[in-house]
Amino acid sequence: MKKVVVLLTDFGLEDWFVGTMKGVIKGIAPAVEIIDLCHQVAPGDIQGGALTLFFSYSYFPQGTIFCCVVDPGVGTDREAIVATDGNYRYVAPNNGLLGPVAARAGSSWRCHKIENPELMLPHPSQTFHGRDIFAPAAAHLAKGVALTKFGKPLRNFISLQLPAPHWDGRRLTGKIIYIDRFGNLITNLSAEEIFTRFKKATHNIALKISGIQIKGLKRTYKEVRRGEPLMYIGSSGYLEIGINQGNAARQLTAQIGTSFYLTFPDQRRGK
Amino acid sequence: MKKVVVLLTDFGLEDWFVGTMKGVIKGIAPAVEIIDLCHQVAPGDIQGGALTLFFSYSYFPQGTIFCCVVDPGVGTDREAIVATDGNYRYVAPNNGLLGPVAARAGSSWRCHKIENPELMLPHPSQTFHGRDIFAPAAAHLAKGVALTKFGKPLRNFISLQLPAPHWDGRRLTGKIIYIDRFGNLITNLSAEEIFTRFKKATHNIALKISGIQIKGLKRTYKEVRRGEPLMYIGSSGYLEIGINQGNAARQLTAQIGTSFYLTFPDQRRGK
Amino acid sequence: MKKVVVLLTDFGLEDWFVGTMKGVIKGIAPAVEIIDLCHQVAPGDIQGGALTLFFSYSYFPQGTIFCCVVDPGVGTDREAIVATDGNYRYVAPNNGLLGPVAARAGSSWRCHKIENPELMLPHPSQTFHGRDIFAPAAAHLAKGVALTKFGKPLRNFISLQLPAPHWDGRRLTGKIIYIDRFGNLITNLSAEEIFTRFKKATHNIALKISGIQIKGLKRTYKEVRRGEPLMYIGSSGYLEIGINQGNAARQLTAQIGTSFYLTFPDQRRGK
Repeated sequence: MKKVVVLLTDFGLEDWFVGTMKGVIKGIAPAVEIIDLCHQVAPGDIQGGALTLFFSYSYFPQGTIFCCVVDPGVGTDREAIVATDGNYRYVAPNNGLLGPVAARAGSSWRCHKIENPELMLPHPSQTFHGRDIFAPAAAHLAKGVALTKFGKPLRNFISLQLPAPHWDGRRLTGKIIYIDRFGNLITNLSAEEIFTRFKKATHNIALKISGIQIKGLKRTYKEVRRGEPLMYIGSSGYLEIGINQGNAARQLTAQIGTSFYLTFPDQRRGK
Repeated sequence: MKKVVVLLTDFGLEDWFVGTMKGVIKGIAPAVEIIDLCHQVAPGDIQGGALTLFFSYSYFPQGTIFCCVVDPGVGTDREAIVATDGNYRYVAPNNGLLGPVAARAGSSWRCHKIENPELMLPHPSQTFHGRDIFAPAAAHLAKGVALTKFGKPLRNFISLQLPAPHWDGRRLTGKIIYIDRFGNLITNLSAEEIFTRFKKATHNIALKISGIQIKGLKRTYKEVRRGEPLMYIGSSGYLEIGINQGNAARQLTAQIGTSFYLTFPDQRRGK
Repeated sequence: MKKVVVLLTDFGLEDWFVGTMKGVIKGIAPAVEIIDLCHQVAPGDIQGGALTLFFSYSYFPQGTIFCCVVDPGVGTDREAIVATDGNYRYVAPNNGLLGPVAARAGSSWRCHKIENPELMLPHPSQTFHGRDIFAPAAAHLAKGVALTKFGKPLRNFISLQLPAPHWDGRRLTGKIIYIDRFGNLITNLSAEEIFTRFKKATHNIALKISGIQIKGLKRTYKEVRRGEPLMYIGSSGYLEIGINQGNAARQLTAQIGTSFYLTFPDQRRGK
């Protein structure tokens, strides 16, 4: 089976940056298949890139190599790393981009620095490590080079500090962590978090954001009227806030980091 | 020969949605080759998606599978379908997206519902059928699964109601049905319609749109001066209105649905 | 090894244009692998397209075929051409798009017109040569068709007139030739030009653009404070002007064609 290398960057598609990475990969590992995950991460937005990876990686076939470059620290002494969780391998800067994936992997996570110049392009630039270091590393991984050949084990892996949900015994405070193309708001409350706090009585919960109240966990957009807001467990496995055929980010003036809270409107029904 | 799966969505490229569909397809059918047709269909714009498919599908090799997801009704009871016209196979919601292709296929069109949970991801979400239902269906088609295995024949195929040209014996009224990146206006008048109505005297016809008159069917942009409007039979096979090195949509303030009409300016030459 | 066809156009990704070219290529040469270099060249921007190719082509494996369509003259008598520099082959309109690549190739550059209708789609349109002429030509090249089969040798190859640096014995005047997604300004001064003029004393040079002075050639963004401008030899091999975690184009109000100059601020150190 052909090895799949998945690319995730903030390089956009306006320039030659992504295409050049593909050229480098094909030059080193001609049999590799390259798939674009996303290149429109906002420039330097490590959290956005980390979540893009986190919400999608498990849908790729085992053995896939993820080459991830959201790298505002390019040219500094932040490490370039190769890593594995046992199922997949990863190439990235050590800046939190792999944080959520590593957190889920737990003790199976292994991580080495990319230090071996033989596994880079000659004379790497200081500003385009995607081309000169990360793409070659992904290609060499695809050809079977072991993590240990890249460099020493990494000691100070940088994780990603996502805001934690806060439960004060009465209400659950969450935050918006991602906004998608359609304006849907992805929150930091997992389905598990919701069901643990509110058991099965989710048709009774109420959410307050930007002064607006939304009642009851819905399953589909069409359970509310066109233009009305709703909350639902999104395809990401996290609570999302959307508007039926509308743009929730715009209509609720929500941003990354906006807080909201969940309650039982009728306290007698609380536990 | 490798099977080609073509993706057409309104998911945009800002998030992980398209990449995740590709991961799912490669997981089910590793040997498949995936090609992007377009992911920038305006959110929920079924007509725009349908025309994008209609103007391009016949240029793909026989046996290509089109996986089309412009699906404002995701999570409702609109059916998910697999279909064939004898040359190609299609996966889409039953909402008009395949309408023009089906209309051209005529009696060779066959269509089944996607009902078999074994051909979906386990526990499909209510909001991301592209990942959970349509991508798996395309991958299974590529692996040779027959339409009949997906579900029952579909009885109520939804076609697309495109505006029809209107000929009142004197003038031909048309509408803009698509605007491309360059601002060119694609109309609902096919080359055949034009030549049927006006025979070969097309250098004499006049078009009126937004109070502007355009004379004579041209073959290339360069037959008019820079900044001047022209009409021509576009690469789509339909009458188009453009501006030499300009943006017709902007300069003629035209939109999808804008009407225009065609006449012989000199009535004595009409038939 | 599979042949790689690289696509470079100004077609954008909003429509079916790029996808259709891929369909045509797969129909003629099913075993070819298609890679997108860039499709977001500004409409008709031949210089932008030419530089996108020039800054990236050498990173692709030998034998790669570049199919380049930035073609404001489509439908005029500008030639469609196939070319080679000995390592790569190219398909493009004869309008300067291949100029920088040809200039670097020097005497190894060979170029033929595309005239043979058997190597085009039947009945090519006048407005979409990407689909009807350039994509088929790239596919036929990939299948091994020789340049000589396409048509006669081209006599009047159009090169690209990039602005030349100007050295008046005291200061070096350059121009901005490309602006990338991050707002970095790529100049027409090659690393070689800089080092020839200023020897190794590059920590002492000063650059003046839009009334702002920037001192010393840096190696990485992080050698200046956040929000401060810097100059460095970019990954393209040319002098670039950037802002650490900022957008230089916006903050320095620079455009393609904006001039700047380089001096030794202390004339006694000049040679």
